[in-house]
Parts: sequence; C-alpha cells; structure tokens
Amino acid sequence: MKIVCIGSGNVATHMAIALKEVGAEIIQVYSRNHQNAEILAALTRAKAISRWEDLNRQADCYLIAVKDEVIASVAAQLIGLKGLVVHTSGATSLSSLSLLGKGYGVLYPLQTFSRTKAVDLKKVPLCIEGDSPESLERISAIAHLISPLVSEVDSAQRTILHVAAVFACNFSNHLYHLSAEILAAHQLEFDLLKPLIMETAKKIQNSNPADVQTGPAIRNDVDTMKKHLSLLQDKPALQEIYTLLSNSIKNT
Amino acid sequence: MKIVCIGSGNVATHMAIALKEVGAEIIQVYSRNHQNAEILAALTRAKAISRWEDLNRQADCYLIAVKDEVIASVAAQLIGLKGLVVHTSGATSLSSLSLLGKGYGVLYPLQTFSRTKAVDLKKVPLCIEGDSPESLERISAIAHLISPLVSEVDSAQRTILHVAAVFACNFSNHLYHLSAEILAAHQLEFDLLKPLIMETAKKIQNSNPADVQTGPAIRNDVDTMKKHLSLLQDKPALQEIYTLLSNSIKNT
Repeated sequence: MKIVCIGSGNVATHMAIALKEVGAEIIQVYSRNHQNAEILAALTRAKAISRWEDLNRQADCYLIAVKDEVIASVAAQLIGLKGLVVHTSGATSLSSLSLLGKGYGVLYPLQTFSRTKAVDLKKVPLCIEGDSPESLERISAIAHLISPLVSEVDSAQRTILHVAAVFACNFSNHLYHLSAEILAAHQLEFDLLKPLIMETAKKIQNSNPADVQTGPAIRNDVDTMKKHLSLLQDKPALQEIYTLLSNSIKNT
Repeated sequence: MKIVCIGSGNVATHMAIALKEVGAEIIQVYSRNHQNAEILAALTRAKAISRWEDLNRQADCYLIAVKDEVIASVAAQLIGLKGLVVHTSGATSLSSLSLLGKGYGVLYPLQTFSRTKAVDLKKVPLCIEGDSPESLERISAIAHLISPLVSEVDSAQRTILHVAAVFACNFSNHLYHLSAEILAAHQLEFDLLKPLIMETAKKIQNSNPADVQTGPAIRNDVDTMKKHLSLLQDKPALQEIYTLLSNSIKNT
C-alpha cells in the first residue's frame, strides 16, 4: 500500500504515522511549505514535496489532510489519478471531491489531535464514506488498518456529528476555561477541579449523560442558583451562560 | 480514631468506606431511614442508628454527610459533644455549624460520587476549614488519612469552587447530554463521541484550556457556524446555546 500524504498538520501527522506503523508505505508528503513537508517526511521515511509537478502519480491512495477551505483546490490537482483520493475532514462533504469523477471518499478520524500529544488511533472512531461501493470497500480496508472502530457515515450525518462534537467537546473545553478564570480571580488553583473534570468525562463512558446529571439545576435548588448568580454579579457574560444552561438542564 | 457517620448517601458511603480502609473505626452510621443506615453500617462494620437518643457521644469525629438543607438541624443534635464535628458540603458555609460553639469544621471532597462506581479518594482534592487552628489541625489529620491532596479553603473560596465546578462539570455533562440527543435524532450512536470527550478532558490535565481550544468559534469560521445553526433550525434552544457559547469563545 503506497500512500501520498497531502498536508503536514496534526491530522496528517497522526494519520501518516499510524499508517506507517501498520505497514503502509508513505511515499511522499506534500505541503506548500517545504520545511513542514520535510518534518513529517522525516518521521515517516517519505519524500517531501512542495510542488504539484513532483507528485508521484502511482500511489494507491492520496490522503488529503489540509484545511477545509483548500480541499477542493487540492482535489483539482489530483484529477486523472488511478489511486483512491480521500479527505479527512468532518465538516466537508463528499461532493467536494466530485470533480475527480470516481475513486474518492472520506476517512474522518473523530478525535482531537495535538502536535505534541500521542493519540492511540486504535481507539479512535473512523467515519468513512465513498463515491461507490468499490471506493467504500477500499477506504474501509485502509481504515481497518488503523482502527477497528470503523463506521459508515454519510456526509449529512458527518455534519451532524461535527455539530454534536462542538457541543460535547469544544464547548466543554470552553467551560473548563471559564471555570479556570473564575478560580484564578479568587486565587484558587484550577488543579483542584481536574479530577472532577476527568471523572465527569469518565462517567458517561458507561452511562447515559442524562442519568448522571448532578448540580443545583437538576435538583431545582433555587437558593444555590441565586447564590451562584450573585457571586457572578460582576461578570454578566458568565451569568448569562449560567442561566441559559441551568434552564436547559431544568427543561430536559 | 472513632467516627460516627451521619448520612448514608453517596458522599457518606465513599467517605466512610475510605476512612474504614485506612484504619479508622466507624462506630455508628446514622440515617433517618434505618434501612439505609443498615446498608452502610454493614459495609463498614458499624452500628446502624436512626434515633438521636442512640447516638454514641464518645466518638472522636462526627462526619455530617447529609443534604445541605438539613446540616444545621443535624448540628443542633450534636451540641455539647467533645468530638470534632465536620460537614462535607461544598455549598454550605462553616457558620452553619457555629451553634456548636467550638470544635467544628468542613471536610469537602471535590469529586462527584455515584453509588455504584468506585472512586479512588487518594486522587480526590479535599478542601478543609476549621473554626480554630486546633480544629483545622485535627481535620487536616483526618483528611490526610484519605488523600494527600488536602487544601485549606475558606467558606467564601469553597463557594467559588462550587460555582466553578458547576461550569466545568455539571454544565459539561449537560452538553454531553445535548450532543447525545442531537446524534440520536439522526440515528447516530453517542459511542462515536466518547473517545473525543475523554481526550478533551485529558488534554486539560496538563494544558491550559484556553491554549487547547479548538472548533469553528476560535477559528472564527463563520461559514461552519452558520451551517451548524441551520442544522439546528428546529431546535431554537440549542441554537441559543450554540450562539452564546460561540460568542463567549470568540470574546476570550
């Protein structure tokens, strides 16, 4: 299995390394920025390229892991190749690759990647989609090299997954940030809350979140909620979030 | 160390078992409901009681782990005892025990407890407060039996911790719930998001949440946010939360 990795960011890095580890050959890493291509190429024993005319046109698979807004323009460089072309974006539809005619699809890893933190891709759900049953089968084979958690998810469902992930993860992280700010304003360490944050995320691995909801709102503990709002009186933005989310908890 | 445990709920159960495990003697478990007292008493080889006249008045420590609103009325039953009296509530001030005159304080475990899930109390921050340096020292000694993570936190700071925990944990859990609902409405499994939720909580154990914020709002990706809002068009409550939290991310 010969793969060309297009992109050198977090997703490209984690995917290329995982594919290399399971025996795929990363033959080239493309990045507009040659230095970035060199870094990932060195990690995967690939050749770094930064000009489309240097593209190896004999690969089995071209993995596009670039910013959403440049996926279509990358695809335009890949017309006429025999190899499978897949993008890795949660927010981009399959049709962004339709200019390729056939032999394309999506391989979306549902995880957040940081450059400096290893992620075990074997535990990451991979959402796949293909332009045809044949493409889907080829993408499925590549996906299963990386993780057993492979699900067929179409473009409409992938968009829904993305919104749901914004709620569950982007917004949760922001709430961690707000709570750290509240603590810092009162000379309290955010470390105090870290075990509770871990436990909250652990709890829902085996329970329905609705069944393990705790706190003043679910108890309709009006006195505590009033007290909390008065503590936030110099922070109207936090009061607004507190009120809206408490009401949402009460209404569900 | 002879301890009377007052209450038989989640906090009482986890604290009493942890204290028993490190060599303290739980001599009695009090609950208004005798059957509940019996259950925890059986787990800790204590005597179950449900009438105040049966209270052993020679214990070293009376641990109050009951609903916030009945702490003061429990304390009224403990006047004149030589033993230390501590409550375990995050949301209740030290002064709720002031009718005891002296020898009282707070031992608040900053964690969420479920009846059915073991929690390693050695990893739980314990926030302590005392009515005097002597009481604080005695509470500190008991707290250190359970966990090395002991912090002196006064009543005002404890209230702030509680608000911050509502943001970081109660509200995050509610966002997990909302995301599960979004997925269910589109025949998608919540399981798909669980690894991402865990990773999001893990990331902030060693990073500042503000430094690892991802998602469309922090990138000011207006197109994706518009698309997400239109996907939620039949759910105005979710749109409102999406907009408020996205704006909060943009403003920080």
